[in-house]
Amino acid sequence: MTIQVYNVLTRQKEEFKPLNPELVTMYVCGPTVYDVPHIGHAKTYVSFDVMVRYLRFSGYRVRYVQNITDVGHILDTGEDRILKGARRERIEPMEVVERYTRAYFAAMDALDVTRPDISPRASAHIPEQIEMVKQLVAAGYAYEIDGSVYFSVEKFPGYGKLSGRHVEELEEGARAGTPFRVAVRDEKRHPADFALWKKADPEHILRWPSPWGWGYPGWHLECSVMATKYLGETFDIHGGGVDNIFPHNECEIAQAEAATGRPFANYWLLTGSLTLDGVKMSKSLGNVLNIEAALQKYSPQAIRYFILSSHYSNPIDFSDAAIEAAAKGLERVLVPVRSVRDRLRVAEQTAAVESDEGAAFCATLDRQRAALKEALDDNFNAPATLGVLNQLTTEVNTLLNSGQPIGQTTLTAIDQLYRDYGGTVLGIIPDEFKPESDYALVDGLVQLLIEMRKDARQAKDFKRSDQIRDQLAALGVVLEDGRGGTTYRLTKG
Amino acid sequence: MTIQVYNVLTRQKEEFKPLNPELVTMYVCGPTVYDVPHIGHAKTYVSFDVMVRYLRFSGYRVRYVQNITDVGHILDTGEDRILKGARRERIEPMEVVERYTRAYFAAMDALDVTRPDISPRASAHIPEQIEMVKQLVAAGYAYEIDGSVYFSVEKFPGYGKLSGRHVEELEEGARAGTPFRVAVRDEKRHPADFALWKKADPEHILRWPSPWGWGYPGWHLECSVMATKYLGETFDIHGGGVDNIFPHNECEIAQAEAATGRPFANYWLLTGSLTLDGVKMSKSLGNVLNIEAALQKYSPQAIRYFILSSHYSNPIDFSDAAIEAAAKGLERVLVPVRSVRDRLRVAEQTAAVESDEGAAFCATLDRQRAALKEALDDNFNAPATLGVLNQLTTEVNTLLNSGQPIGQTTLTAIDQLYRDYGGTVLGIIPDEFKPESDYALVDGLVQLLIEMRKDARQAKDFKRSDQIRDQLAALGVVLEDGRGGTTYRLTKG
Repeated sequence: MTIQVYNVLTRQKEEFKPLNPELVTMYVCGPTVYDVPHIGHAKTYVSFDVMVRYLRFSGYRVRYVQNITDVGHILDTGEDRILKGARRERIEPMEVVERYTRAYFAAMDALDVTRPDISPRASAHIPEQIEMVKQLVAAGYAYEIDGSVYFSVEKFPGYGKLSGRHVEELEEGARAGTPFRVAVRDEKRHPADFALWKKADPEHILRWPSPWGWGYPGWHLECSVMATKYLGETFDIHGGGVDNIFPHNECEIAQAEAATGRPFANYWLLTGSLTLDGVKMSKSLGNVLNIEAALQKYSPQAIRYFILSSHYSNPIDFSDAAIEAAAKGLERVLVPVRSVRDRLRVAEQTAAVESDEGAAFCATLDRQRAALKEALDDNFNAPATLGVLNQLTTEVNTLLNSGQPIGQTTLTAIDQLYRDYGGTVLGIIPDEFKPESDYALVDGLVQLLIEMRKDARQAKDFKRSDQIRDQLAALGVVLEDGRGGTTYRLTKG
Repeated sequence: MTIQVYNVLTRQKEEFKPLNPELVTMYVCGPTVYDVPHIGHAKTYVSFDVMVRYLRFSGYRVRYVQNITDVGHILDTGEDRILKGARRERIEPMEVVERYTRAYFAAMDALDVTRPDISPRASAHIPEQIEMVKQLVAAGYAYEIDGSVYFSVEKFPGYGKLSGRHVEELEEGARAGTPFRVAVRDEKRHPADFALWKKADPEHILRWPSPWGWGYPGWHLECSVMATKYLGETFDIHGGGVDNIFPHNECEIAQAEAATGRPFANYWLLTGSLTLDGVKMSKSLGNVLNIEAALQKYSPQAIRYFILSSHYSNPIDFSDAAIEAAAKGLERVLVPVRSVRDRLRVAEQTAAVESDEGAAFCATLDRQRAALKEALDDNFNAPATLGVLNQLTTEVNTLLNSGQPIGQTTLTAIDQLYRDYGGTVLGIIPDEFKPESDYALVDGLVQLLIEMRKDARQAKDFKRSDQIRDQLAALGVVLEDGRGGTTYRLTKG
């Protein structure tokens, strides 16, 4: 197992060596559950899903923690996201959390994204967050002013090491009003200091008692607290979207390392962002594509194929043309997979003989299996992996079209290679092909047989018409002849 | 809306009057997520599901809160249930919580149980629980001894009002070793006093800091805290299994009413328990039937029908004979429903004329609709409701077998009545009938057509054989003739 990863923290590709050689500990920043998930979430979490799948496929155990932000994530307008959702829908804040946590997991399940092993919620870790703030105050990294507690960035020399920003630069930035968007509160000692705990007025529903009075935790705090709680003070991989590298990830490191005195995450892997028709998605612009809406037009596998056609660390642009191209690319891979599985079913019954061409193909499969591993070992390079799958597909098509008999062993080996890399790792090839709407197809087939029975009866071929009726009944389809024509019912429904 | 409920608190049937005439506030004790859910959970939560469904069907808005116990539920052996699960599976306690919370909701979703609006977790409300303990100590209802805090039952005159047990009796019980199972700790002032907060050793993973040192909340506390947090100090309905009436529900009332000085829940509705072949389910006896296993043998609707065939407040015994009887009872109801829906499909196309018998049936439907409402208004009497549905079914069967034409209006009215009470309220009639395994059925139908095409070709009727091939292709089923025979692939799959 020699996987190379690009570590944003060191800005270089490194061999991936987990602290425990058998268990990979991995934390990825999860969503703020105040609205339905959009296609940008799909990009982020499908990318990390493939990493988790590949690590497990490579023999590691993985403990995958991904948080749910249900408190403290404040918009640029100063509004709390959850409370904004609650006002919009006239329900309780925790009903907002419930509704959108469910919507998030439903979307991820539909996209076949592996569930995290632990999905801790920020609101469920208030005491732990208060403890870390107390530690930081006691160690001199944080100070209280009027019921709020701030982290003093000047006290932590490593501040900026992930994003490459410097405290001096941030100070100037804040003064000049550049897009760093550091909220300037007069009470802070330095404009780049950030809140660990915020004082809350009585009308703020999401608030808790603390040594500094009633308030709520700063958004960055939850990740430092929950990552170290479930994975240890130092763990292997920290993931997230590159948009959150500053201030969020930077603050996470500062808080955790100042509190524990140890390195936080060894490898930082960040995903590029997703634009829609070349523009950043934004509610105010009205250009947000929800996952549910996308799934009404495209299959989960096509959406995954589209996302994986660009490297996880790169940005990607979603457009109808791009996703349709992805769907076509996927279909090209699926055609021989279906054909191989169909032939396998026949081969199992007929014990087809292997031709020399068939037997020789196993060398091709070995070569391509090695190439697939190589692509993924190289910083989880999914587009390169898709490239190899496409080459493989060309070679499989040539074999299938050769007219030579292909034996069960070769067919099984082809199927297995697609299942391993296309299925288990990338999640773009289904375990089983099912028609999109079985019900419509069943109805179409039954209607066809009803017509054929009608033809037989009109031709006075009653033996034939009775046979059709009996064979349908054996399949659980009972025909009923009435005045309005023949209807049917499914007895196993 | 005049629903009568049996209120365990007052031991009588009362007219149900919610505090807010439009919004019903309802709390039901949820599961401890340390193992997969069993058929006893199905009994409890299907019962409350029907209440929530019927209240909504009757025009109420309902805020339904059901907690998840992920900390503090201690077994008789003194073990924490979550930690026991973690040891058994050699994973982190929060992975146990994650795994079995998911298993619980997956089982409930499969049983078509409506999700609660808020599913608060005990571990997510530690600060709120500490606050209530502080209030109770300050008001003199609780006392601290060596890092643990106990509720003094003698200080709360209402202790015992739900379960009908008296403090004196409890004291004698504890002394005599009766099955009240009051944990006697020497440090308690009275043997019936119960823990609000328990001191925890450092090796106890699930622990938090508090004014009394590191510890964790007593099991009963979470429900008092989360119910009042999300529903208000006084709310309408508190539900749960009757097995938990003492000490759990009794302690909930004591804690909440002592802390707030107001009544806790106005109506207490408790479900009877479930036995398996006449015996209480028990892991140590090895007689536990998991919901997932039950669903492999029986449909969700059959399991619901079985549960609803006994009144929610009564005990019920699960056996193969009983569930098979329920499945037969359900099938008897489903037969005319399928038939009515099939006829409706034909009627929509043919504009069938209504006969006098058909038109007259609407009076029957009105009468039965009133009877269904009456049954449910009477303390959510599901078995009586099933009785009415069965009478209705007899009458519908008579009409359907009469040979008289039935018009679209009457067919629609019959279908709607079944949909309302059998579907929306009881959840035993599906919105749409689908074959159990569409894939197997599709395969069977296609194989049948392949055989018919083969027969046609052998009879040199190539026009017929080509027609079958083309009609299948139009449905998205492409036939491929090979050496081993004819295979097919689904192009829309």
